[in-house]
Amino acid sequence: MLRCLSCSLALLALPLTAIADPLPSWNAGPAKTAIIEFVDSVTDPASGQFVPVSDRIAVFDNDGTLWSEQPLPFQLSYALDMVKQRAAEDPSVLTSDALKAAAEGDFAAVRETGSDGLLEVMGISHANITPSAFKASAKEWLTTTDHPTSGLTYAEMTYQPMTELLRYMRDEGFTTYIVSGGTLFFMRSIADEVYGIPPSQIIGSIGTMTYSVVDGEPTLTKDGGALFVDRGPDKPVGIMNHIGQRPIFAAGNTDGDFEMLEWVTAGEGARFGMLIHHTDGDREFAYDRESSVGSLNRGLDEADSRGWLLVDMAEDWARIWSGME
Amino acid sequence: MLRCLSCSLALLALPLTAIADPLPSWNAGPAKTAIIEFVDSVTDPASGQFVPVSDRIAVFDNDGTLWSEQPLPFQLSYALDMVKQRAAEDPSVLTSDALKAAAEGDFAAVRETGSDGLLEVMGISHANITPSAFKASAKEWLTTTDHPTSGLTYAEMTYQPMTELLRYMRDEGFTTYIVSGGTLFFMRSIADEVYGIPPSQIIGSIGTMTYSVVDGEPTLTKDGGALFVDRGPDKPVGIMNHIGQRPIFAAGNTDGDFEMLEWVTAGEGARFGMLIHHTDGDREFAYDRESSVGSLNRGLDEADSRGWLLVDMAEDWARIWSGME
Repeated sequence: MLRCLSCSLALLALPLTAIADPLPSWNAGPAKTAIIEFVDSVTDPASGQFVPVSDRIAVFDNDGTLWSEQPLPFQLSYALDMVKQRAAEDPSVLTSDALKAAAEGDFAAVRETGSDGLLEVMGISHANITPSAFKASAKEWLTTTDHPTSGLTYAEMTYQPMTELLRYMRDEGFTTYIVSGGTLFFMRSIADEVYGIPPSQIIGSIGTMTYSVVDGEPTLTKDGGALFVDRGPDKPVGIMNHIGQRPIFAAGNTDGDFEMLEWVTAGEGARFGMLIHHTDGDREFAYDRESSVGSLNRGLDEADSRGWLLVDMAEDWARIWSGME
Repeated sequence: MLRCLSCSLALLALPLTAIADPLPSWNAGPAKTAIIEFVDSVTDPASGQFVPVSDRIAVFDNDGTLWSEQPLPFQLSYALDMVKQRAAEDPSVLTSDALKAAAEGDFAAVRETGSDGLLEVMGISHANITPSAFKASAKEWLTTTDHPTSGLTYAEMTYQPMTELLRYMRDEGFTTYIVSGGTLFFMRSIADEVYGIPPSQIIGSIGTMTYSVVDGEPTLTKDGGALFVDRGPDKPVGIMNHIGQRPIFAAGNTDGDFEMLEWVTAGEGARFGMLIHHTDGDREFAYDRESSVGSLNRGLDEADSRGWLLVDMAEDWARIWSGME
């Protein structure tokens, strides 16, 4: 709120165009308009849709919504690299078909071993490591490893329009949470830096961890197990456990986000559901119904009837990645 | 920050005694002094102990630290009442010795059935209920049920000195979390109202929950199972999962809080560990080493050598309960 009359007058004297566009990487069009209209309506005390700050909670999927997820979700690429690295040090760690396939970087073969195989591969990078050491390893990998096709590091492949949206919503009194199938400390390794989201506002899959005093030092150690997998119908569960209330805004991009959007947008009052549709094969990756990673079917079929915004990346985004010149 | 010169001058003109005591229910003495000195040192940018707001994280056990826990932790009394209530409607729910003992209010007999029996009794009140309905039931019970000896409802038995401490620390830029063995939605039922702690800042035991669409309505349903029990060495685990960083201040009152204090106070920089010692049999309950509920042994033995503040309730608190006249 402005605190002096002369400030208010000074603002009134500015031409309207001088008020900064909060979403410069979004092209003018119905998507950008819908977002701004929603934010305006819930933040205007005179609007019938006004929502107090304590209820302005927005949740965002991460893979494919805030950063890219092709050809593999980044944490899976990281896990494969870690299996390879550990196997190079000690080949006896490759105790299963899933781990052997992972060490060869053959994700298709890992997938054939089913969800147990996947958890085993993910588990290796989470075994016998402190959360701090895990975060440091993830951060180093994300910020120094080149993505196979983009010419950028993984950390540079966050979506610039979405980082603007996060900041814009926070400026308007929202609390922004990540709600991802990825694990907590993988995202925490860079989320504050790249998204402005602090560690306490990360919801994700939770690995098991134990407390002990090692050489006189109280120590938490991740042991490679999984306590909670934050996917599909368990996303509303993870949100309710962590936040304790239903958000009013949800963004996702796959059918793994369907229940989150369904639950969030079914609440009373103003609600907003957003699905990022990966339509830009030139600048990013084009995929939806048939993709083995990040498939979107039910969301495409029902977005219209449910009033969810389908963001057309090719059409709606002036720029894709934050790390792009 | 004061925004006008005349305000600053007005403040300077006040006698020092007119500056409000942030902890009026704490008697003058070493405990109160130690708390204020710690807060002053971490909030003064000129102090060598300065801690930025993002790291000013304080965690508080609930039972026996923020509200009473005798003759039974309140959530256990609630669970026994709920078993009794369900059994009155349908006696066939009493399928085990633990549940039969619970229906008779015989906690000693419940305890004899071991931790499985305890979880079963706790589970009944969490089975087949939405988080909202559970919260409403817990709130009604806490605010309308009379405690057996105090003459107050359970909700009135929060500690006035601790609610003042929570508010004081938040005013000084701290984020205050509850870290309890109690379950999330039991505490969330009144924590915002009685402690000023919002639902997202509650860490506790986590019940299992499933998502489904019931009669067209997206619905979360608690099913009575336990995902995570937030006790002893698992308190640091729960904190790290939820907050993602080590707090600088921890308060507890039993050996179930030992590891939390040990971990918090072992971090670098300014740290504060506090144990509430229940010394006041006249105004509250006097118990420590031999108590079947809330026993404190190792904490009493080691508080001094670890530099933890042992709060003497009889000596240090001018008032006990918030609901007391």
